[in-house]
Amino acid sequence: MVTVNHDYLNLRGSYLFSEIAKRVAAYSAANPDKKIIRLGIGDVTQPLPTSVIEALHKAVDEQASAATFRGYAPDLGYDFLRNAIAEKDYQARGCDIRPDEIFVSDGAKSDSGNIQEIFGRDNRIAVCDPVYPVYVDTNIMGGRAGSFDEARGLWDGVIYMPCTAENGFAPELPAEVPDLIYLCFPNNPTGAAITKSALQEWVDYANRNGCVIIYDAAYEAYIAEDEVPHSIYECEGARTCAIELHSFSKNAGFTGLRLGYTVIPSDLIRDGVEIRSLWARRHGTKYNGAPYIVQRAGEAVYSEQGQKEVRQLVDYYMTNAASILAGLKAAGYSVSGGVNAPYIWLKTPDGMGSWEFFDHLLTKANVVGTPGVGFGPHGEGYFRLTAFGDHAATAEAMERIRRL
Amino acid sequence: MVTVNHDYLNLRGSYLFSEIAKRVAAYSAANPDKKIIRLGIGDVTQPLPTSVIEALHKAVDEQASAATFRGYAPDLGYDFLRNAIAEKDYQARGCDIRPDEIFVSDGAKSDSGNIQEIFGRDNRIAVCDPVYPVYVDTNIMGGRAGSFDEARGLWDGVIYMPCTAENGFAPELPAEVPDLIYLCFPNNPTGAAITKSALQEWVDYANRNGCVIIYDAAYEAYIAEDEVPHSIYECEGARTCAIELHSFSKNAGFTGLRLGYTVIPSDLIRDGVEIRSLWARRHGTKYNGAPYIVQRAGEAVYSEQGQKEVRQLVDYYMTNAASILAGLKAAGYSVSGGVNAPYIWLKTPDGMGSWEFFDHLLTKANVVGTPGVGFGPHGEGYFRLTAFGDHAATAEAMERIRRL
Repeated sequence: MVTVNHDYLNLRGSYLFSEIAKRVAAYSAANPDKKIIRLGIGDVTQPLPTSVIEALHKAVDEQASAATFRGYAPDLGYDFLRNAIAEKDYQARGCDIRPDEIFVSDGAKSDSGNIQEIFGRDNRIAVCDPVYPVYVDTNIMGGRAGSFDEARGLWDGVIYMPCTAENGFAPELPAEVPDLIYLCFPNNPTGAAITKSALQEWVDYANRNGCVIIYDAAYEAYIAEDEVPHSIYECEGARTCAIELHSFSKNAGFTGLRLGYTVIPSDLIRDGVEIRSLWARRHGTKYNGAPYIVQRAGEAVYSEQGQKEVRQLVDYYMTNAASILAGLKAAGYSVSGGVNAPYIWLKTPDGMGSWEFFDHLLTKANVVGTPGVGFGPHGEGYFRLTAFGDHAATAEAMERIRRL
Repeated sequence: MVTVNHDYLNLRGSYLFSEIAKRVAAYSAANPDKKIIRLGIGDVTQPLPTSVIEALHKAVDEQASAATFRGYAPDLGYDFLRNAIAEKDYQARGCDIRPDEIFVSDGAKSDSGNIQEIFGRDNRIAVCDPVYPVYVDTNIMGGRAGSFDEARGLWDGVIYMPCTAENGFAPELPAEVPDLIYLCFPNNPTGAAITKSALQEWVDYANRNGCVIIYDAAYEAYIAEDEVPHSIYECEGARTCAIELHSFSKNAGFTGLRLGYTVIPSDLIRDGVEIRSLWARRHGTKYNGAPYIVQRAGEAVYSEQGQKEVRQLVDYYMTNAASILAGLKAAGYSVSGGVNAPYIWLKTPDGMGSWEFFDHLLTKANVVGTPGVGFGPHGEGYFRLTAFGDHAATAEAMERIRRL
């Protein structure tokens, strides 16, 4: 008799963004004359950099001629891209990472969802609260979350690491030792960053206890402060305890183009197995490589011109972040994030709940953001705004919030 | 303590193509003057159709301007593509399949590997022997294969359905009822096709016994004979028992562009659950959609011009298939396939083993093919040649084999 994967049935509905869409649609229908500004989603709005567009056109032309046509890509990524990543993202920063430790994929969401599969079902995971939902949901699907505790709003098999105003939205080393630790810095949703010395404590903790850190560096390009590391491999000993995930979505605007990569050093060995070999086998068996034309687009990001254009793109969004931060502070809000990350995390005023503030902002200022509680119980009383809008709309949103 | 997924450790090395590469490299090094012709791999050689190239350039240009930029795609695929597929691949053939039953992905390899994940670990799978290795390997990784029986060269938890000359390379309905049945028609590696009436028997069997058929239609575009169905949904009752996988790789040459789709009808319900909803949840949680530009390329395949160009591409390869078939027959070989599929399956002469014949062909004719035993024990004594080369090289290979 056919059975389904019962772990899937444990998943909770993903109500956050559908609930937002529902409330916005209802308000818009009742108030068709109101111009709503959306600072809720994590998608970029600016076009792809010129060097990326040029690389795409060139690669498409190659696919039009038998002499230059490329069929199946190497499962793990083309050497031209793996070499560029190793050189520019790692060796240039003094990190000892080789091209054969880099695995190119169709994006950090896929990788952050699939990475758990190469580990046993009995591993205990630790995540921040609030947190990017994919880490938890994919571990529910993988049978590692236990049961959902309705009262606490948490899974009893998961170790939660609260990120609060009291700890500066930086999780503390867990008292109960987990197996797999998900960390994301700069953080989604709080926008918090971590210093190199603080991250070194996590690496030391993981090496001391045999944990593996899954380090999501998707927002690395937004780092502005010197003491914030761009890679976990800047820390001593990370090669024996850390996997790092990278995205081309938020630096170069590849949200619709799909490209990312995962780093697994050959020194990461657990349970007698080189973890890298399991990931390579997964790629080889269940994946067929990122498109050639998209890998050429990724290569262009590392060209001199590409790096300049990415910097301009990041600066564009961070101008929004600065404007949001300044606007909210001037209006009397408690805010954090927005310095090394495109996310601004604000405390809702007057003890309002996240959803209550959502409705307040929607109906009074016609601005849409994301209720913090949607990312976990410790997000209650908080609210996320993103810097990915265009300048005019973002400035207009701040003006409306100021006038509230 | 971190554990790895021990099911991964059960995987056998994938020696087939690496062993081929090793033997070819050794021969080439010893005989640098010999011109080797490769008819072994399943990758295409001809460039992308003009309408696809034009669609790609146009979509890339859209990504260069903020007004037309597209970020995150809908997880399940853009409507423009899902609608085109539903209309042209299904409704035009009288198959009752709706756009919301179609899930766009980065290719049939990913889908054929990932589909098992939405089913329970206790399902028993049935596969053809010989078979495309991904079906078995991903079920080993999913814990459904049992132990490997070295003597038989088979997994004791898997039901094998031999495809032999005696049954015309068409598997028989299994005596022991499986849960999940993988079928691929037109078949890789044998090139065999199935008639609609024969496929109807499988559908009836599955409905009678509660099985789910995972029907891989990757080579559908090569079907030349009227009685061969292009989709399993041409059969009565397939909506309640079948999942269908499709590729853009072999019809439109997307091996390096990556696009495919999976169909799961809303009527496919098992274990009290709509199977479609599990796949949608998997897409939503672990996948971020195929690239916008690639989905536009896929849409172009369904244009009038695109359909014409795909037909030309298929005809190009099938001219090779006809030439291989005729050449082998003239040289006295027993051959099958090559009529509704780009694969030719030949019986090795004089009782030679598959690898013995490989060496014979490599050293005497400088032609590379694929040993049938690499696809399973019942492939022993057989050999696969593919029609994906160019005309001149394929003709030259046949001339060399004739002279053996």
